[in-house]
Amino acid sequence: GDIAAGKAKSATCAACHGANGISPIPMYPNLAGQKEQYLVLQLKAFRDGERKNMVMAPMAKPLSDDDIANLAAYYASLDPVGK
Amino acid sequence: GDIAAGKAKSATCAACHGANGISPIPMYPNLAGQKEQYLVLQLKAFRDGERKNMVMAPMAKPLSDDDIANLAAYYASLDPVGK
Repeated sequence: GDIAAGKAKSATCAACHGANGISPIPMYPNLAGQKEQYLVLQLKAFRDGERKNMVMAPMAKPLSDDDIANLAAYYASLDPVGK
Repeated sequence: GDIAAGKAKSATCAACHGANGISPIPMYPNLAGQKEQYLVLQLKAFRDGERKNMVMAPMAKPLSDDDIANLAAYYASLDPVGK
């Protein structure tokens, strides 16, 4: 995926997952440095309802496959310690 | 949770999630430095079938609440870059 495009798309995500991909909320996961393919699988699972989550469903619903690839590339590219 | 007890319990997990919590397998997530509460929620969801995954279901099934608390504490305590 395209990291820059993913960053542009990530504005909404930052509220819960942190501007640097480290979540400020204990029940929401850090995404910084996570496995790119894992992120793609989870976003598709949320989008398609295979993985049920009331917060993530509306977030993932409008995403295209490209959006998902770009978001996954972006978060995978972030420093795992959030620097 | 108890980090040492979590580490003892994590032998099976290391195969897919890495001895240092950084997964060697692209479709499996890194756990090192992840949010403790998030990890507890996911392990319980896998155990109770709320989150469906054919690989994780048998892994989580036998875990007690204490096991889950200890595993979550252990992985949350690991260095996010796996050092």
